[in-house]
Amino acid sequence: MVRILENVRGEDVYLIQPIALHPNDEFVELLFWMDAFKRASAESVTAIVPFFGYAKGDKKDEPRVSIRARLCAECIELAGADRIVTMDLHSPQVQGFFRKPVDHLFALPVLCEYIEKLKLPEFVVVSPDTGFTKGAHRYARRLGAKVAIGDKVRKGHSERAELLSIVGEVAGKDALVVDDFSISGRTLVDTARALKERGARRVYACLSHLLLTADAVRRIEESDIDLIVGSDTVENSAISATRKIRTVSVAPLFAEAVMRVHARTSVSILFDQVPARVLQQVPEPDAGNAASP
Amino acid sequence: MVRILENVRGEDVYLIQPIALHPNDEFVELLFWMDAFKRASAESVTAIVPFFGYAKGDKKDEPRVSIRARLCAECIELAGADRIVTMDLHSPQVQGFFRKPVDHLFALPVLCEYIEKLKLPEFVVVSPDTGFTKGAHRYARRLGAKVAIGDKVRKGHSERAELLSIVGEVAGKDALVVDDFSISGRTLVDTARALKERGARRVYACLSHLLLTADAVRRIEESDIDLIVGSDTVENSAISATRKIRTVSVAPLFAEAVMRVHARTSVSILFDQVPARVLQQVPEPDAGNAASP
Amino acid sequence: MVRILENVRGEDVYLIQPIALHPNDEFVELLFWMDAFKRASAESVTAIVPFFGYAKGDKKDEPRVSIRARLCAECIELAGADRIVTMDLHSPQVQGFFRKPVDHLFALPVLCEYIEKLKLPEFVVVSPDTGFTKGAHRYARRLGAKVAIGDKVRKGHSERAELLSIVGEVAGKDALVVDDFSISGRTLVDTARALKERGARRVYACLSHLLLTADAVRRIEESDIDLIVGSDTVENSAISATRKIRTVSVAPLFAEAVMRVHARTSVSILFDQVPARVLQQVPEPDAGNAASP
Amino acid sequence: MVRILENVRGEDVYLIQPIALHPNDEFVELLFWMDAFKRASAESVTAIVPFFGYAKGDKKDEPRVSIRARLCAECIELAGADRIVTMDLHSPQVQGFFRKPVDHLFALPVLCEYIEKLKLPEFVVVSPDTGFTKGAHRYARRLGAKVAIGDKVRKGHSERAELLSIVGEVAGKDALVVDDFSISGRTLVDTARALKERGARRVYACLSHLLLTADAVRRIEESDIDLIVGSDTVENSAISATRKIRTVSVAPLFAEAVMRVHARTSVSILFDQVPARVLQQVPEPDAGNAASP
Amino acid sequence: MVRILENVRGEDVYLIQPIALHPNDEFVELLFWMDAFKRASAESVTAIVPFFGYAKGDKKDEPRVSIRARLCAECIELAGADRIVTMDLHSPQVQGFFRKPVDHLFALPVLCEYIEKLKLPEFVVVSPDTGFTKGAHRYARRLGAKVAIGDKVRKGHSERAELLSIVGEVAGKDALVVDDFSISGRTLVDTARALKERGARRVYACLSHLLLTADAVRRIEESDIDLIVGSDTVENSAISATRKIRTVSVAPLFAEAVMRVHARTSVSILFDQVPARVLQQVPEPDAGNAASP
Amino acid sequence: MVRILENVRGEDVYLIQPIALHPNDEFVELLFWMDAFKRASAESVTAIVPFFGYAKGDKKDEPRVSIRARLCAECIELAGADRIVTMDLHSPQVQGFFRKPVDHLFALPVLCEYIEKLKLPEFVVVSPDTGFTKGAHRYARRLGAKVAIGDKVRKGHSERAELLSIVGEVAGKDALVVDDFSISGRTLVDTARALKERGARRVYACLSHLLLTADAVRRIEESDIDLIVGSDTVENSAISATRKIRTVSVAPLFAEAVMRVHARTSVSILFDQVPARVLQQVPEPDAGNAASP
Repeated sequence: MVRILENVRGEDVYLIQPIALHPNDEFVELLFWMDAFKRASAESVTAIVPFFGYAKGDKKDEPRVSIRARLCAECIELAGADRIVTMDLHSPQVQGFFRKPVDHLFALPVLCEYIEKLKLPEFVVVSPDTGFTKGAHRYARRLGAKVAIGDKVRKGHSERAELLSIVGEVAGKDALVVDDFSISGRTLVDTARALKERGARRVYACLSHLLLTADAVRRIEESDIDLIVGSDTVENSAISATRKIRTVSVAPLFAEAVMRVHARTSVSILFDQVPARVLQQVPEPDAGNAASP
Repeated sequence: MVRILENVRGEDVYLIQPIALHPNDEFVELLFWMDAFKRASAESVTAIVPFFGYAKGDKKDEPRVSIRARLCAECIELAGADRIVTMDLHSPQVQGFFRKPVDHLFALPVLCEYIEKLKLPEFVVVSPDTGFTKGAHRYARRLGAKVAIGDKVRKGHSERAELLSIVGEVAGKDALVVDDFSISGRTLVDTARALKERGARRVYACLSHLLLTADAVRRIEESDIDLIVGSDTVENSAISATRKIRTVSVAPLFAEAVMRVHARTSVSILFDQVPARVLQQVPEPDAGNAASP
Repeated sequence: MVRILENVRGEDVYLIQPIALHPNDEFVELLFWMDAFKRASAESVTAIVPFFGYAKGDKKDEPRVSIRARLCAECIELAGADRIVTMDLHSPQVQGFFRKPVDHLFALPVLCEYIEKLKLPEFVVVSPDTGFTKGAHRYARRLGAKVAIGDKVRKGHSERAELLSIVGEVAGKDALVVDDFSISGRTLVDTARALKERGARRVYACLSHLLLTADAVRRIEESDIDLIVGSDTVENSAISATRKIRTVSVAPLFAEAVMRVHARTSVSILFDQVPARVLQQVPEPDAGNAASP
Repeated sequence: MVRILENVRGEDVYLIQPIALHPNDEFVELLFWMDAFKRASAESVTAIVPFFGYAKGDKKDEPRVSIRARLCAECIELAGADRIVTMDLHSPQVQGFFRKPVDHLFALPVLCEYIEKLKLPEFVVVSPDTGFTKGAHRYARRLGAKVAIGDKVRKGHSERAELLSIVGEVAGKDALVVDDFSISGRTLVDTARALKERGARRVYACLSHLLLTADAVRRIEESDIDLIVGSDTVENSAISATRKIRTVSVAPLFAEAVMRVHARTSVSILFDQVPARVLQQVPEPDAGNAASP
Repeated sequence: MVRILENVRGEDVYLIQPIALHPNDEFVELLFWMDAFKRASAESVTAIVPFFGYAKGDKKDEPRVSIRARLCAECIELAGADRIVTMDLHSPQVQGFFRKPVDHLFALPVLCEYIEKLKLPEFVVVSPDTGFTKGAHRYARRLGAKVAIGDKVRKGHSERAELLSIVGEVAGKDALVVDDFSISGRTLVDTARALKERGARRVYACLSHLLLTADAVRRIEESDIDLIVGSDTVENSAISATRKIRTVSVAPLFAEAVMRVHARTSVSILFDQVPARVLQQVPEPDAGNAASP
Repeated sequence: MVRILENVRGEDVYLIQPIALHPNDEFVELLFWMDAFKRASAESVTAIVPFFGYAKGDKKDEPRVSIRARLCAECIELAGADRIVTMDLHSPQVQGFFRKPVDHLFALPVLCEYIEKLKLPEFVVVSPDTGFTKGAHRYARRLGAKVAIGDKVRKGHSERAELLSIVGEVAGKDALVVDDFSISGRTLVDTARALKERGARRVYACLSHLLLTADAVRRIEESDIDLIVGSDTVENSAISATRKIRTVSVAPLFAEAVMRVHARTSVSILFDQVPARVLQQVPEPDAGNAASP
């Protein structure tokens, strides 16, 4: 049961709720909170969903499945959301599942700020499959690096995908594997092995959403991956089990977005030009960092 | 992820899903299944929800809460339900939360069939509080018994309610406490104690939905209650821990309702006149029954 | 035909219209006014419905009836209501028939203020049936009195209900029968007779909505009831025919609610703590009062 | 309260309810019946509204009024109408207020059948104002007559309109004034007087809907009008007060339409070619007819 | 593709787009712009549609056609319009196709201002058919002139209509033919010929919307029409081909309406009392005017 | 204006309308036809949209743009579509823009049938960019070939994209470039040049939708491309200008889908196992084929 303790009549409410590791509970709770706020006469309710789950449920890639992300979007609007703020959707089309305005933020500038502090001497940005190539080019452009691409084929639905090849020069360089999220960590681990086999020095990874399971964390621990950097969109106790994973908070970026939504100034400017006051809050890589040379 | 394995194009689908002990998961799963069936071109989808949870969320009894049952009803219709079949709603007004036809079944005839097989010599039907008086009268009418009423006041939301009094003659008689459901078992236990204090012989209870927790089952085990009879609308592993609870299946009643929905014959007739072919499936009380004298 | 004579562009409109003695005309007129205000570009329209009729049409208590209150609620929202303010709904679930915020006021504090001015020496609050027990406890708590309950069974739909018993001590005390409304007055009259038979001194009654017909007023005139106090939510010319009925205005309470809605301050606070400026407007019981000893 | 006495599950329901002399009651009753049928699982509900009231409420001809016919149409669809069958709408655009299919019937063929039986030797069809010119031409084409037009200007809203002139040759001929409906009868009476002044012999009138008030009937009684023929779309006890008004039943035409809707054959064919089995039911003008020479 | 170049978050947007000579492109473009503005978080979007095309698609005058104006209205609201401002709808009922407020302006005061500057010595306002009689009376009242009416019958759908007669005195007078729009110019040309045959001196015409095709312009050039005055609601390059057509801008009137919408002051006042600051912008008829005596 | 000439009451209508080269006209016409069919009481309307235009408008890839495909989908459903049948959507998420069932067909089996008839000795399937990699693998799997991938970066919106590299072995082999559609032909031409530079023998291309402009056809004519095979989803007169382009009809596949929709049998089976009766209608490559060696 949800209950709001104070009068919110006429207030603009910004409700923060990721739909992440326990998506059903988190999703239903989000609905009930929004209903409570609307019935309590809030002026507006903005659903801030740092990670919008049901991410792979955005299409009918097999016969007779649900398009879960669409249904989820409709329920969120039904419950009263006037606006949605989210980050790094699995496919940009998901914005079109909403009728209400969506402010779609990118973790990239904040994550890159951390990467730059690592001062990697020479490195290449790697997309672990062709599906994230556009994303890899965005990272590469920001970091002034080149791109390499892993091409794997996902055979069927339950089988493990098989990594085919790495396209691009990686020998003697550090590699920065980028992706929007990983659950089992397998693709990352396989990519890291392939990179090392092709002569890469160190292998870093950069993930928007840290959905890694405990198993995944163990797998990474034993892998060729040196360091993973990700945002804190998901509260994930599993990742505390390893020093190989660093989280960089995107809270200042969301805070900036909320202030801009509230002040009616441009949010899209945050896609490229994140204000210094946000970037200054990205921490220094710690000295005893497993990733330091 | 839900996936339908066979072609359902043009079929009338009857989807059975209680929203009970894990309401969020069960509710969301119901939504996704319905979406999958509608997108797979089912002719119609009937949501059979033997227990419709979020039952107490049918009103704003405190400021700034969600009317969860309404929101839940709207999401179910949004996802594509053409009809809802359910049993013993906490308040009959919940039907009005749906726009689509609702067939609202009663467990009473089936539960009474079992009660009658117990051949209690002289007994009184007891409503544990004034809120279920109408229901108690319905049981009493069917069973040819008199009614007694417990009057308690629920003080605040989290505090335990305090039982005030039992209205009606119970001394020297068996008592049958009736209610739609119980979670903690406390009201039942308190009512049973009050009944025994007032001279009642044996105390039976009849519940539509067995939502009792493991704690509740332990509490009942140690209480003055002799036997609880309930339906199988809820799959509840906790109740196997005691011989004090019997479940009577309402599946034949639901089956009858589905056949009638499908054949376009009257379902409301099931409110009073349940066909013999349904009642014959109610089992005999077992010999080693804790409740036998 | 409805026509607004002045420019209302951008205004917040508070439209007062009970749905009471001529519900169809009043309901349709409400719809047309709201449509006119919305098309005339009012910023918002709040439907203030002091009595929300179709009250018993909140469920399907018989097969194949309309859930009129739900349909009525939907039409009101269709016509453009942004908010509803109402008083003492027949069942609290009716709030859930609306998607828009509902401010649900209670006449209780105002009516109790009047009761207290009567300075009854010793009295008990009586619920005429078990359906209003919760309401009776609310009155009792506010007035510092005990509760007695009448238990009647409504046999069939058209037949008169039969009063069974009064539970609680009433002999030698005054009695205050409370209910949300009465149309025929029969339950009140029967309860009063039963109370007198059980030794009650004077019988008062307190009703939220005075929907009594002319026949009911005559019936009350000839009954054991000494005085009825009710609110002025319904304009009812029939009640002027007797000195046994007093109306206490809830207009100051609605005015307070509207001011709070407009100022975006808490309305739910009015449920318990009605400001002195509202209660001060409750009149003194008149000297020649039929109810004075 | 509405209640359906028999099982209607899966049935196609044709619900007949004019919205005429007591529009609010009739309209609300229509809504409740439709809701009851839909909740009782009728397969479809066709609202047969022989006269669709709120007819002049089809536009904002003054600032800040309601477009009542649109709102009414929306409520009818909200309550569950799958189709609407109606007759001689005040403006054809009202069909566009509905999203569901509308079968719009014309009383003209039936009324003309009666007119032809009067065997008027030489006559002209008269539109009482320029607004019904198209309708007059339709009558004239069917009856093989010429058209004359009255041109009046409606000055303001409450004032009586002033008849300016009759355009067309009427001297020495019978006149047949045609209109969709009349409430006060004033326009008819004024037109009749103007026609007689210009040398018309007898003055007949043909109205689709007989909404005439008792006052209107008296006014007609004393006027130059010889006979009014109208349909029975409206049950109007006032018109029994005069022998100057004849009703011709359109029930056979509606029956034909319902059979065609149900058999999925063309209804639009009824606009021009009404089957003989319908027209044969038009009665002979009675011998003692005030209108006979 | 539409793209908004500047931040519009929180802004009230007034989007000007007639649906006129290329209705499909203009309509779809309007939809896309509105969607873009709403998704870009504009506070409100007002669709200013000086000419609302699909004008004749406001009814089912033949079986099995679309009511295009209704569908168009629904799409506009679906795409996000909060308000519509338009001018001289073909039928006033079209307002009822919208649920959102419509501000319906009239070109008449501005066009009459121009007509008055022509200082016609004695003239009569002519409605080219009975369908525009009300409009003709409105012009006549404003200009202090009498009315004459052309009565034509439109035979079938594709055939040319045949002009029957001119009702009213025109001999020796100037004539001002008024209509809401003309596409082929044929009715105007035929009316002009009929007027000249009946002795009219000069023939002027006044049209709200100049939708004339190049063919129509040629036809008018060779006709008895001396001058056509119309508004600039439609950008129409065809009309530059003749000196017989003058456009008077209604932009100041729309500007006044937008200012009033924005300031929440009355717009309906513009129906009759157009402020001097708007009328002063109506130009003087030019010296070399074909229409000057 | 659209008008249906025959009675369609109760019929299942399958309406074929691509939204292709003149998308606005085609889209609006589709809306009007559907509205006409629904108002004419068709039982159901299936919108068959062989090419669903506004394809790139499926996301907000830049700030403040419209998500045109979503809006388009909503309008199609508003106008009455009960089902959509389409082919090779630009992104599979577009299905999620619809609430109604979508049958999403693939041209691949039919196009591959033609490719196989070409009997290319040894060839590689080429995705012209990383965005179509999954599609390329689907072709490769069906044809038993390997995959090569072109990696280009689209710099800004208006600038030409720059081709970076071809990943995979192409020297000495034929190449089959595959994509869903091409408008300007530039990517195809650039890819073909790059392939030839890397030693490819002949370059074929396979496109689902032939949207090529006249300019594109000229560009292809002068390019290294030997033959393009595409479906006939789009009627495109421009492509008759060259013998380098072959169309293979997907009409038999759509016909099969419609028969299956109507018979309520599986449509998804067509994704992989197209019946022989469909494939047999794929023509033999003509002898004088420009593409033959």
